[in-house]
Amino acid sequence: MKELEDRIRKDGIVREGNVLKVDNFLNHQCDVSLYDQMGAEWARLFEGKRIDKILTIETSGIGIACVASQHFGSVPVVFARKTESTNLDGEQYRTEIRSFTKNRVYNVIVAKRFLNPGEHVIIIDDFLAMGCALNGLLEICDEAGVVVEGIGIAIEKGFQPGGKELRERGYQVESLAIVDSMDPETGDIVFA
Amino acid sequence: MKELEDRIRKDGIVREGNVLKVDNFLNHQCDVSLYDQMGAEWARLFEGKRIDKILTIETSGIGIACVASQHFGSVPVVFARKTESTNLDGEQYRTEIRSFTKNRVYNVIVAKRFLNPGEHVIIIDDFLAMGCALNGLLEICDEAGVVVEGIGIAIEKGFQPGGKELRERGYQVESLAIVDSMDPETGDIVFA
Repeated sequence: MKELEDRIRKDGIVREGNVLKVDNFLNHQCDVSLYDQMGAEWARLFEGKRIDKILTIETSGIGIACVASQHFGSVPVVFARKTESTNLDGEQYRTEIRSFTKNRVYNVIVAKRFLNPGEHVIIIDDFLAMGCALNGLLEICDEAGVVVEGIGIAIEKGFQPGGKELRERGYQVESLAIVDSMDPETGDIVFA
Repeated sequence: MKELEDRIRKDGIVREGNVLKVDNFLNHQCDVSLYDQMGAEWARLFEGKRIDKILTIETSGIGIACVASQHFGSVPVVFARKTESTNLDGEQYRTEIRSFTKNRVYNVIVAKRFLNPGEHVIIIDDFLAMGCALNGLLEICDEAGVVVEGIGIAIEKGFQPGGKELRERGYQVESLAIVDSMDPETGDIVFA
């Protein structure tokens, strides 16, 4: 999606360790007009599919998913919560997600009553790199018996394996910007 | 706001310790249509004011603020981040916020470049009870030199002092539902 690529080129900051900072418009300050354009684009890409609900994960996915939902008939958005509690509550789906960026493991929960067997969902998130967060959400979807119609990502790091693996497993992954390479010294970003 | 009060009566769950669970529509599963109605109502209540930016705090404020922003010309939404790091980075405003619900203290940060002196902001959040989160955000606003045009809250616990204190300090606090009392035994909720 050209608008997103342009914005990443303009405001994205490349750091050592494959870090792309986009907090100017995506995940600290939110450009709501851009979110709206992203939602419209996912609606086009997933057109014809039944979507009952959008699943995302705190924190940065929430605003993107809520604005995007308006392009899917304002279906409910459920966000998985990161928690430190290890309390085993039977009313929650629960999994562990490793964050390579933050070098830690989160417990992630979704209340069972918000994912009902047979519902059709798309998953939306800001970044896809190794795919750890998405794999955790997909585990929860499997356990809940919901149908995953697709995965909408703002920025995919195409030089990391998450997206490729998910597509090989048969998921429709729609990343609005795929970064092929980026250079922390020059700041150059090459898109797929 | 009648739609919100009706929804709280229908789906809110009252628990011991002044807890009102609204995760069915406000802060785990998000009713985006309701968020949109809430945004329209805040736009009416703050009509005529210059609003350059909306400030909120993760997690539950983000979706509400992003959808509401569309009723304020899609101004940027900045969300304060809760962090465990005590790293003193000169590029961030930083304060501590006590959560009575969770019985802990958070470090809360906002990157300085996202709040510019002279900007006019409203603060939006899901709950107002003791006012700890808002007082922290207001400290950051003071330090940043931004003009706080008002505070938009979804649910205020009117039996706790946060809202009263903020109004006494001169802030325009617009809570869309003010709970006067609630009873964990009967589940009854009385609105102001």
